[in-house]
Amino acid sequence: MPDNSTIAVDAMGGDEGLAVMLAGVARARHQFEGMRFLLVGDEARIAAGLESHPNLSQHSEIVHAPGVVEASEKPSQAMRRAKSTSMGIAIDLVKKGRAGAAVSAGNTGALMAMAKLSLRTLPGIDRPALAAPLPTLGANDVIMLDLGANTECDARNLIQFAVMGAAYARVVLDLEAPRVALLNIGSEDQKGTDVIREAAAVLRAQTHLPMTFTGFVEGDRLARGDHDVIVCDGFAGNIALKTAEGTARFVADLLKRAFSSSARSKLGFLISRPATKLLRDHLDPNNHNGAVFLGLGGIVLKSHGGANELGVATAIGNAAKLVRADFTRRIAEDLAHVEQAAA
Amino acid sequence: MPDNSTIAVDAMGGDEGLAVMLAGVARARHQFEGMRFLLVGDEARIAAGLESHPNLSQHSEIVHAPGVVEASEKPSQAMRRAKSTSMGIAIDLVKKGRAGAAVSAGNTGALMAMAKLSLRTLPGIDRPALAAPLPTLGANDVIMLDLGANTECDARNLIQFAVMGAAYARVVLDLEAPRVALLNIGSEDQKGTDVIREAAAVLRAQTHLPMTFTGFVEGDRLARGDHDVIVCDGFAGNIALKTAEGTARFVADLLKRAFSSSARSKLGFLISRPATKLLRDHLDPNNHNGAVFLGLGGIVLKSHGGANELGVATAIGNAAKLVRADFTRRIAEDLAHVEQAAA
Repeated sequence: MPDNSTIAVDAMGGDEGLAVMLAGVARARHQFEGMRFLLVGDEARIAAGLESHPNLSQHSEIVHAPGVVEASEKPSQAMRRAKSTSMGIAIDLVKKGRAGAAVSAGNTGALMAMAKLSLRTLPGIDRPALAAPLPTLGANDVIMLDLGANTECDARNLIQFAVMGAAYARVVLDLEAPRVALLNIGSEDQKGTDVIREAAAVLRAQTHLPMTFTGFVEGDRLARGDHDVIVCDGFAGNIALKTAEGTARFVADLLKRAFSSSARSKLGFLISRPATKLLRDHLDPNNHNGAVFLGLGGIVLKSHGGANELGVATAIGNAAKLVRADFTRRIAEDLAHVEQAAA
Repeated sequence: MPDNSTIAVDAMGGDEGLAVMLAGVARARHQFEGMRFLLVGDEARIAAGLESHPNLSQHSEIVHAPGVVEASEKPSQAMRRAKSTSMGIAIDLVKKGRAGAAVSAGNTGALMAMAKLSLRTLPGIDRPALAAPLPTLGANDVIMLDLGANTECDARNLIQFAVMGAAYARVVLDLEAPRVALLNIGSEDQKGTDVIREAAAVLRAQTHLPMTFTGFVEGDRLARGDHDVIVCDGFAGNIALKTAEGTARFVADLLKRAFSSSARSKLGFLISRPATKLLRDHLDPNNHNGAVFLGLGGIVLKSHGGANELGVATAIGNAAKLVRADFTRRIAEDLAHVEQAAA
């Protein structure tokens, strides 16, 4: 039975350094009273960093780790010395039941490999999926998965992703029956591959689960806010996610170029600054931070490597919601329901 | 031997109507001296429309067609009456050698099906690919294919797409050795599916063709301008294209919302108008219009259904460049080279 009031934090991962991680944890702590933190990493450095956060000090404990996984390190190499790294020890605390979740901003591949080896997958799950929240025009973010962990998928994988994504959306987005769609190249029933059509047929029949299957969604409607969970294989998910990121940056670059094209437009930009700041805030990845590995025997969240204090706090907050909701048990139950119905 | 100074135009297709089609053709004619047009559709209506374009009248001929393919019509249904429709007759004029290319703004599925049946595919090509130019931050557009004609592809398909896309970029973008990349979920050699890695290995060896294979490109770099041709299967291509369209509209909607959030930002917007107009012009699909079916025994271009006069002129201009370059023969030669090298 894991400790569902404690989160293990890999304090050393991330490009922004220890101070940003600690500031993010301290910020999240204010919103989640009663939550405790195990801060894993270099003991002396963490102790020094905590001097700026007396309140967090009272609600946390330092767990020393001599090593750190490097951002460029190969997962296979990192795994060999997992037990001496802050990332590996944070995951191990979940395995031992001392924490309900682990959060790291370090190397994604290494985190996935270590988490899978240590926590194992849930019954019936071959490989975990990577899910993340993305901004929309609607009232809440949309959860998209898989984002690259599984290059090729069969129908059973997609069905499991749908069930796990819906469970995640219920807890993190606070929805009763999330609207779940499959990413496809058309909205009509006969569109797409056999795998996608087969998954759609099974999902359409899952009326007993707390989710609403809404059919197929095309790439141009990902951010419209008409779906809460979007399911696809890791290849399509990676292409869609990165294309969306690249296009948003492309438009922003064009806008910057346009605004600096004349003195008049520079003036217009200065006057419009509150408006463009609104736009930036809405798209700021720090407001949508916290990718999660779904399908493991424990909760592991990946905070973006470049996340700032707000971004870290968002990821820690999502972890807190998941542990309080006893998320791993809920997902296992939902998966068992679907397997029974399909059998 | 097709008539490489004549283009057949389906004057009835498209959501914007006959007047926009004729205005677009008239506009393109100014840039391509010596080019002639066969305007296919309702004879009386075209004759009436031409009264506003005396110059185009002198360089065109009306070919009567009693029927029109509807936008919502199933391709299988449209094909049964192909010979009485403006779309089918325009394609037939290419088959008979009376025109070097056909351009239509009508139903894409019907256009593909009719073109394939009438013009056949080039030797060694199973199914044609749909290619289109997209805006970038660089000096020219990027040509992307396949955009949805082939849901699942093997390595040979991807290699053919690369060769055909490069030939298209040479003519339409006026490049000597286009930089060709494969869309993938990472840039390292071991990333992606077996199919993609196999295609990469063959393309890396094609040093005798006028193209430069640049390896893998990820979704976030499609619009950076470091590639001229991006190759993928129709599933990934459709997802990437629609996600890019959707994200650009999403950012524009957020911007609109932000600019109307206060009196101050509304004023800023008015002052910045020339800048935001620059942005709109750069992204305007009418500047990047003209998807082409590659791999057919003749040239068929699809103008966007909602294209305006400028958009139609862009598509007709691309058709003119292709017929003048004797494009179908060039593509067949390049494909034969690759097949020989691979044999």
